Amino acid sequence: MNQSVDPVESLNHFDQDGRVHMVDVSSKTPSHREAIARGIMDMDAHTRTQIEARGFKKGDVLSVAELAGVMGAKHTANLIPLCHPLSLTHVSVKTAWMSDSPSSRAYLGIEATVRTFGSTGVEMEALTACTTALLTVYDMCKAVDRSMTMRQVGLIRKSGGKHGTWTNDAISPMNGEGPAI
Amino acid sequence: MNQSVDPVESLNHFDQDGRVHMVDVSSKTPSHREAIARGIMDMDAHTRTQIEARGFKKGDVLSVAELAGVMGAKHTANLIPLCHPLSLTHVSVKTAWMSDSPSSRAYLGIEATVRTFGSTGVEMEALTACTTALLTVYDMCKAVDRSMTMRQVGLIRKSGGKHGTWTNDAISPMNGEGPAI
Amino acid sequence: MNQSVDPVESLNHFDQDGRVHMVDVSSKTPSHREAIARGIMDMDAHTRTQIEARGFKKGDVLSVAELAGVMGAKHTANLIPLCHPLSLTHVSVKTAWMSDSPSSRAYLGIEATVRTFGSTGVEMEALTACTTALLTVYDMCKAVDRSMTMRQVGLIRKSGGKHGTWTNDAISPMNGEGPAI
Amino acid sequence: MNQSVDPVESLNHFDQDGRVHMVDVSSKTPSHREAIARGIMDMDAHTRTQIEARGFKKGDVLSVAELAGVMGAKHTANLIPLCHPLSLTHVSVKTAWMSDSPSSRAYLGIEATVRTFGSTGVEMEALTACTTALLTVYDMCKAVDRSMTMRQVGLIRKSGGKHGTWTNDAISPMNGEGPAI
Amino acid sequence: MNQSVDPVESLNHFDQDGRVHMVDVSSKTPSHREAIARGIMDMDAHTRTQIEARGFKKGDVLSVAELAGVMGAKHTANLIPLCHPLSLTHVSVKTAWMSDSPSSRAYLGIEATVRTFGSTGVEMEALTACTTALLTVYDMCKAVDRSMTMRQVGLIRKSGGKHGTWTNDAISPMNGEGPAI
Amino acid sequence: MNQSVDPVESLNHFDQDGRVHMVDVSSKTPSHREAIARGIMDMDAHTRTQIEARGFKKGDVLSVAELAGVMGAKHTANLIPLCHPLSLTHVSVKTAWMSDSPSSRAYLGIEATVRTFGSTGVEMEALTACTTALLTVYDMCKAVDRSMTMRQVGLIRKSGGKHGTWTNDAISPMNGEGPAI
Repeated sequence: MNQSVDPVESLNHFDQDGRVHMVDVSSKTPSHREAIARGIMDMDAHTRTQIEARGFKKGDVLSVAELAGVMGAKHTANLIPLCHPLSLTHVSVKTAWMSDSPSSRAYLGIEATVRTFGSTGVEMEALTACTTALLTVYDMCKAVDRSMTMRQVGLIRKSGGKHGTWTNDAISPMNGEGPAI
Repeated sequence: MNQSVDPVESLNHFDQDGRVHMVDVSSKTPSHREAIARGIMDMDAHTRTQIEARGFKKGDVLSVAELAGVMGAKHTANLIPLCHPLSLTHVSVKTAWMSDSPSSRAYLGIEATVRTFGSTGVEMEALTACTTALLTVYDMCKAVDRSMTMRQVGLIRKSGGKHGTWTNDAISPMNGEGPAI
Repeated sequence: MNQSVDPVESLNHFDQDGRVHMVDVSSKTPSHREAIARGIMDMDAHTRTQIEARGFKKGDVLSVAELAGVMGAKHTANLIPLCHPLSLTHVSVKTAWMSDSPSSRAYLGIEATVRTFGSTGVEMEALTACTTALLTVYDMCKAVDRSMTMRQVGLIRKSGGKHGTWTNDAISPMNGEGPAI
Repeated sequence: MNQSVDPVESLNHFDQDGRVHMVDVSSKTPSHREAIARGIMDMDAHTRTQIEARGFKKGDVLSVAELAGVMGAKHTANLIPLCHPLSLTHVSVKTAWMSDSPSSRAYLGIEATVRTFGSTGVEMEALTACTTALLTVYDMCKAVDRSMTMRQVGLIRKSGGKHGTWTNDAISPMNGEGPAI
Repeated sequence: MNQSVDPVESLNHFDQDGRVHMVDVSSKTPSHREAIARGIMDMDAHTRTQIEARGFKKGDVLSVAELAGVMGAKHTANLIPLCHPLSLTHVSVKTAWMSDSPSSRAYLGIEATVRTFGSTGVEMEALTACTTALLTVYDMCKAVDRSMTMRQVGLIRKSGGKHGTWTNDAISPMNGEGPAI
Repeated sequence: MNQSVDPVESLNHFDQDGRVHMVDVSSKTPSHREAIARGIMDMDAHTRTQIEARGFKKGDVLSVAELAGVMGAKHTANLIPLCHPLSLTHVSVKTAWMSDSPSSRAYLGIEATVRTFGSTGVEMEALTACTTALLTVYDMCKAVDRSMTMRQVGLIRKSGGKHGTWTNDAISPMNGEGPAI
């Protein structure tokens, strides 16, 4: 883990009196920032079969989830109490089936990328896009598989800002061909 | 798993043409419904120490996360494309440290309970409350621990409606004393 | 036109002092209500060609527009100042190419159906779903066709409530095979 | 039509895999941008009479619609799935009766102007302001005229950005004295 | 003050562990409920003069504030963390100049009435409508009078529900002719 | 009062035709801006006792109100019709008991500070944060004290922008030790 914690920033949503506040970023220099988050929906293999059977028509589960994820990124500041409202310059959400599931299960990887030019990072926007897409998959498939479970939802990379690039060494982003997670 | 899938409901967000739609619940009889969801934030043991050190003052991480979770339930229909807008009669979100983590890690359990009297279930509201609380924990602690990961986010119980009670046999709800997950 | 105007309801968003208000529906008996709205996007024939070329992949213009329309219905009370906030029991949005366009133009019909069980009608929800879907088509295609124009956006049918069923005699709903507008 | 289509931008809401995304504008240079949209509400001449009879009191239909249009512009990114959230520097919405209607009908023109300083245009904000104002007119008058229809809703001018000024040659903006549409 | 405090309800947003929650109203019997709130904007007499000079045109300060108040009621559950989302059956907001101000000051009374049929009261919706209207007056006049101050914002009456009617004996609602506050 | 009114800005939400609009700030130079608002909740002394008895547990009334105030600032542009949507760089909300209340009453001071770097001020965001926190106190305590009243809600200081710093001479901000209001 190549993260170096800045002691003056530790739990910086609290001021010296212990009150919550939206951290003051007035004096930060704006920069290009990017964050990538990903998570996995662990489902019954039969559920994957049904998703794929529908996939040949328009409006399939995966594209609705991807779209919901993109829109979810725009709701971040309304959901997360101390998040700054931000202009976003890019949001994308990708889904891919992962190859390492046991035969009775299917793992759907969801990866969200968010960019901005500003004074605060977009980690929360990427994570919110990811969880919104996961929730949407659950909603659309819950009639057949209520035991679906979200796993390993986390940040995999962020860049820009004072602390520069951070990579979660334990996991890798999905690439075009399929998830390497 | 005591779930019996209703074949006529399978992937019922699609109509016969494959188009997405908000499922018609006009003819359903309203009933009392409840759903309980839970998830786990897997974090560095040092992060737990910092959360607890702040916990003695007002405005600590856990109570902000619980409150964000309650509010998140009210955003569900805006986030999940095909969710019905609902009146909610009860929302609560609880956090508890789990006892089964390895010594270098800490597991924070978050459990959300939502109730309504209506024609559709509140599974999505419970899951959205849970993920919103998890995202809030991430936001408030990310300056010290960017590798926090959400795990095992899922539904643990729902009751009411045509299909009655369903329990996720693999996991149990947290009780007052601490999580039994 | 089979509408019979109720004189006591005329422009009923104003009270006797001329002030706007949200009309009091406290004493109305809830009933099943439905409204269907439709509109047309008039575009260059070349734009249709591009939409259809993308249509074989997931995430095409028409399915994004249909989904946006469904979600738009849920924003109605936030957009229209004097609309009552409502629970919706069904929303669907369909798109279909119309056959009566001149050769250099293409007409895309969009039809939205909304249902509720309640004390006020869902005309505004159906119209908002329809215009949101139309706006989404514009957004996704504006890079190639800025002169797209929305035409004939209106209500085609409503049922339920004190006044019962009303049909716009001048136009007909789209059926499964294609629009009869 | 003086529009020159940029081939690399065609249907640019899709990436190379056909997935929807919010287009990356990170590298665009911010500039002053403006967009003007307009639409027409085609109504019964009697409905105009009623609107005007109320117009002498505060809270009349036209000023409520203008205000709703201004507010609607601020909802654009929540309604249109792939729209960038933007800061707006100016929004205005004007209504004017048009002189070219047949005697039994009345045409209400609604024109919205939106400005920003940023990396993306405000076409969608202008169009959303316009449709929101039109929907509000419908809502306030529907008790007397359910067959009102929105016509010719489109962009009439945009300026700023890489492609500069574009004017819809077929139509003209409304001026202070009355619409020239 | 004719209020009789129910000891089992005291500070009932907390459960027995001291955690916040949205109070469970599942078992309450729905009833017709109404709440009336009012507040006063204390401003420079010169500011009133300017408001009234504009009042003869459409779009004046008072009608914009009244409309904003009506819309504000619909935002209540998003603003107030533990408020239940509700269907509202009626909202109205009235403004009136009060006669008891000293000569150099002007007092603008704002009164909001909200009704619902449901399991919880609408006190918060009435108060939110009132404060939103007051904030809107401030916004529209702040360029000429930054020292405007909101005073005596409170509930004046509520009815319906288990506890029935409560009246704030210290103050009276405004009537049609002018405020009796 | 050290305010010098700019005559060209007077009631500048209206254009020359008397129509409302969102004021054009396109040509303003962005600057660092801050606004501080405060208000008082006047309550029964017994209500203060109950708030303080709960204050030793997490989730107390005051920290929920402070958090609601921070989130409320982010809703400003949705509530106030002609407010510009803004990026905020800092929001904090503080509560403090005031020492000048009569023995049977308790005065809770609430103070909100908002900062941005932009072309318009954040007076409305500070006032909205303050009123949202006040409303939240009301909501959480209304079961025991329906006659709570908001008093003296106003702006106490703003800085930045063309007009520079303005201070409300009649009142002072609360400091760390307690309110000097």
